[in-house]
Amino acid sequence: MYTDYDVIIVGSGVAGLAAGIYVSRAGLNVVVMEKSSMGGELMNRQLIENYPGFADGIQGPELAAAMLAQAEKSGVEFMNCEVQNIKSKNRLHTVYTNNGIYTSKAVIAATGSHPRLLNVQGEAELTGKGVFYCATCDGPLLAGKSIVVAGGGDSGVSEALHLANLGCKVTILVSKESPKASAVLLTRVEENPNVHIICNAKITEIKGNDWVSEVVYEDIRTKVPIELEVEGVLVRIGMRPNTGFLKDVVECSENGQIQVTEEMASSKEGIFAVGDIRAHSPAQIGAAGGDGIIAAMTAVKYIQML
Amino acid sequence: MYTDYDVIIVGSGVAGLAAGIYVSRAGLNVVVMEKSSMGGELMNRQLIENYPGFADGIQGPELAAAMLAQAEKSGVEFMNCEVQNIKSKNRLHTVYTNNGIYTSKAVIAATGSHPRLLNVQGEAELTGKGVFYCATCDGPLLAGKSIVVAGGGDSGVSEALHLANLGCKVTILVSKESPKASAVLLTRVEENPNVHIICNAKITEIKGNDWVSEVVYEDIRTKVPIELEVEGVLVRIGMRPNTGFLKDVVECSENGQIQVTEEMASSKEGIFAVGDIRAHSPAQIGAAGGDGIIAAMTAVKYIQML
Repeated sequence: MYTDYDVIIVGSGVAGLAAGIYVSRAGLNVVVMEKSSMGGELMNRQLIENYPGFADGIQGPELAAAMLAQAEKSGVEFMNCEVQNIKSKNRLHTVYTNNGIYTSKAVIAATGSHPRLLNVQGEAELTGKGVFYCATCDGPLLAGKSIVVAGGGDSGVSEALHLANLGCKVTILVSKESPKASAVLLTRVEENPNVHIICNAKITEIKGNDWVSEVVYEDIRTKVPIELEVEGVLVRIGMRPNTGFLKDVVECSENGQIQVTEEMASSKEGIFAVGDIRAHSPAQIGAAGGDGIIAAMTAVKYIQML
Repeated sequence: MYTDYDVIIVGSGVAGLAAGIYVSRAGLNVVVMEKSSMGGELMNRQLIENYPGFADGIQGPELAAAMLAQAEKSGVEFMNCEVQNIKSKNRLHTVYTNNGIYTSKAVIAATGSHPRLLNVQGEAELTGKGVFYCATCDGPLLAGKSIVVAGGGDSGVSEALHLANLGCKVTILVSKESPKASAVLLTRVEENPNVHIICNAKITEIKGNDWVSEVVYEDIRTKVPIELEVEGVLVRIGMRPNTGFLKDVVECSENGQIQVTEEMASSKEGIFAVGDIRAHSPAQIGAAGGDGIIAAMTAVKYIQML
């Protein structure tokens, strides 16, 4: 059976690149398709301290550049295009993109996730005008300003510390009784005079004309609304898997994550899913790489048997 | 409940160190116990080209050093000792070593595996010089060469096909009357002009100066020695997981691998198993790191709940 590629990988984050390296090293021909910047979510990350192998940590874009170079050396092809749909019949997968139609024997979906929104008044209007979702991309625009970070998980607290490094005064608003971030990050917040945390604080509105000037939150115990003068808002309250193009193709969980076997196989023969989009993903870079490796090895064996 | 450590990790390879970094960053106290060189199997590896993040590859000991430094920075403690037995009662784990007895709330076993050797003349001397044990890892070093694969099981035959994809001429030597590999793989071999199988062939010697040049095998029916000129030998006759100290503690498969859930939990509450020793492990460095991360996150949540 002729196909354009043995394997089409959708998404160029860690999971997709790890898979690409392994598929290509097995002598199969493989393309990684990416709709925005090559490197995926890594491009939006500052210092990554917990990816095993870097004693002093590594900047997200730097890790992305290394993995992209490694994949290219391994023989991986890259294509900038958006995958819109996949149709699978008789073990042939047809991938429809905004840059043409391509066929393959296997597909590895590695499209990651995108940030969850606050969905409050003013957020959409002020996005890009003081409301941001990624300190790495937009931090310099916020340097030296007083900022609210929405979200008390590892990502939110880590982004808050990053902004403090840029001379920001940061208030982390946490809608729950306590932040979920790991102890080591919370210790760093305690040590940092420019970051503090307010809990039980539910953001209800973002105000401003051309730029953010105020965040309104409600103390969820007293229902008292409180106004904070700020010059920026960084939203970091979770991620949604980018699996819309697969929702009629493979079985997904309620929140859009793809059900996979231990070997990363989805419910559709020849389609694999890895990284943040697979059900029960720990959403960690090092684990996403492991997923990609497992899926690649499964795909290689699957193609051997066709 | 007082314990010496929150978490005891047994084994200092990638899986153990990744777990250590994550456990320590979560604010728990953790020791990594290692019976030989810190860094585990990495210390015996040359250039590793497929661990995601290093464009030009990285030497095993160099990767080990980086991970050890990263773990130390994260607050991981290290101990050189051999774990001999573990007893678990009322969620307290008592770890017996040749350097004392220690207690913990959780144990992460990450002791790795080692390949079964041919144990023939020349094998040890030429390991890394044409003698390899993993085509997925080292296949590109053998691309285009004439290779003997030792082993007619699913792994051996699958690795042979993998090498054929890389342009190798492959002879599979099987010491029994027929290969044990599954029918579909053997069909693929029949269809592939670059792979053939010789049965009743017991390897007796590997020859070569700086690199493998010849394999000698004996036809076990005729006892006639036969010399094959080759440029590489891939030995794939099984892996042995280092799980002796756990065999009466947790459920293992026939070959000694530990059965785990998706979250790396073994059959014994509070004991986790990661990397090559867990059942269905892909036996890859990047995937072992992912296992360690998942187990650490599970262990941290488990201890929060105690």
